[in-house]
Amino acid sequence: MKGEEEIGSANLHTILREQKDKFAADFAVISDSGMVAKDQPTILYGLKGFTGLEITLKGPDNDLHSGLYGGAIKNPAMAMADLLMTMKDKEEVIQVEGFYDHVEPLTYDERELIKNAPSEDYSVSTGAPETVSEKGYTAKEHTMARPTLEINGLYSGYQGEGTKTIIPSTATAKLTCRLVPGQDPEQIQDLLVKHLEKHVPKGVELMIKREALSAKAYKVDPNHTLIKKAAESLTETFGKEAVYVRMGGSIPVVEWIDASYGIPVVLLGFGTSDDRLHSPNESFPVAHFEKGMKTLVYFWKKIKEDQKNSSLTVYLQGYKMYLNHSLLIMEE
Amino acid sequence: MKGEEEIGSANLHTILREQKDKFAADFAVISDSGMVAKDQPTILYGLKGFTGLEITLKGPDNDLHSGLYGGAIKNPAMAMADLLMTMKDKEEVIQVEGFYDHVEPLTYDERELIKNAPSEDYSVSTGAPETVSEKGYTAKEHTMARPTLEINGLYSGYQGEGTKTIIPSTATAKLTCRLVPGQDPEQIQDLLVKHLEKHVPKGVELMIKREALSAKAYKVDPNHTLIKKAAESLTETFGKEAVYVRMGGSIPVVEWIDASYGIPVVLLGFGTSDDRLHSPNESFPVAHFEKGMKTLVYFWKKIKEDQKNSSLTVYLQGYKMYLNHSLLIMEE
Repeated sequence: MKGEEEIGSANLHTILREQKDKFAADFAVISDSGMVAKDQPTILYGLKGFTGLEITLKGPDNDLHSGLYGGAIKNPAMAMADLLMTMKDKEEVIQVEGFYDHVEPLTYDERELIKNAPSEDYSVSTGAPETVSEKGYTAKEHTMARPTLEINGLYSGYQGEGTKTIIPSTATAKLTCRLVPGQDPEQIQDLLVKHLEKHVPKGVELMIKREALSAKAYKVDPNHTLIKKAAESLTETFGKEAVYVRMGGSIPVVEWIDASYGIPVVLLGFGTSDDRLHSPNESFPVAHFEKGMKTLVYFWKKIKEDQKNSSLTVYLQGYKMYLNHSLLIMEE
Repeated sequence: MKGEEEIGSANLHTILREQKDKFAADFAVISDSGMVAKDQPTILYGLKGFTGLEITLKGPDNDLHSGLYGGAIKNPAMAMADLLMTMKDKEEVIQVEGFYDHVEPLTYDERELIKNAPSEDYSVSTGAPETVSEKGYTAKEHTMARPTLEINGLYSGYQGEGTKTIIPSTATAKLTCRLVPGQDPEQIQDLLVKHLEKHVPKGVELMIKREALSAKAYKVDPNHTLIKKAAESLTETFGKEAVYVRMGGSIPVVEWIDASYGIPVVLLGFGTSDDRLHSPNESFPVAHFEKGMKTLVYFWKKIKEDQKNSSLTVYLQGYKMYLNHSLLIMEE
């Protein structure tokens, strides 16, 4: 089965929903995830969901001469700056009413887990001059376990060399939110729309395109037996205690499996932050490929020990796998 | 002589400055201006100057995955919204320190002149949902006689169809100001740079490109003899009293003539707001072409009456004109 990730996996969702018998399982293992650092075995027990929308502010019908009309006509680019600034305060706290209402609070235990996860040196990995984070949370906590609102794209008026003295006719911004457990993507989209409609500046009209693809966040109990077995398998392979993290990324199929089948999902992935995910020259360490297979063998062995009399069929990254005693058989 | 308006007229400025003897004159007449409405004779006695710059905020070295880094890395597009919003308040008052320091206050007489000029119906001519204006001034006053700051272009991140969940690496805005008498373009540019450097948000780096072309505003005394003669000529031609206006547009050559020759400039133009200035399908009413020529003939006759014993050579829109008694001769 081809998941069609790069075009939104619309068919995958339908198939999973409509052919439940075919894909029925006790649990799922997905390896589309990463480790916090090279050779640092990582249990990923939570992913963020997301939702998005595109907003356009329309001012005049055409770009206008900024000399003839500057002072009488609201500049849509400035109106957009104004509108965007109503959405977040200077301490990175999202100002959309109700946005945090259903966010599960971070427990002491979780904050400890996050604190113990190795820290990425953002200045090295991103080149950004300094980090920021939501008031009351560290950058790591914000990244892993708090909802976010980001501008993914912004455009208005003249973009070529030099100057063109116009008042642009429109300004557009693309926004997405990463969501955490408790938040419903459609409800959040509604709250965003309501906020935007309430705060649209004088002198421009607001148009909104809702992003169709959205997903809930996913979190599995880090103390779940399956997760513990995964952690032990990692430790055996890498000779190092696994760390527990949540991640700001979204893997919508995880939430679809959760929603349609109600089964736990074990995320056993081996990517690293150097892999240039979704970018040109994407890579994967060869050593991790081997250690990853080894980890999975340990994992299935542990599962088999618990379920001596049952047979298991699982799907893993496009391969169908059988457990026959302790022999792992994979076929495409 | 070709003025090269569309590429900034850099050579024109040099020639006017360096060949003063060749172009020496008692006054100048320029017809690169318009009337406030069709068949409403208009004396344009002031133009704005301008200056500009391009600002770029740099965050991470590359676009980043918004799930992995959202919450730790300042979004340059949001930082740009923040920075732009420091420049103007909600009442359209520019917040750059010192920006208004040398602005000549609007006198009672000028406000009366502006009030008496026919009003453009902005909702019809621009399609914008409503007008805005600087606190304490009408839209017409702001447009004609107050300095402005406009965003001419804005861009950051992904601009294609749908969604790309990134934190953009940079955000760029193009800004220009229209200036009024008293304001020095270079000084204003310095004030803008100082303001931007002071207000750059945490987590991004500021880069500034200064726009090379800038110009001072120009204003001639509306009671100057030449202006009065121009007004009388318009009235004779159109059978209607001329109105007096200033305009938000800039005609840099006016300020260059003023600076190099110290002579008054009479702006006798006949364009209308329907002409689609600098836009595709630019036009000019045929009736105004004829009435414009007539107005100029009346004007030169009046000048000649005053200067019976002197001969005049003037340059008008690329034509050299001679006044021989009361006969107007034009040659290319």
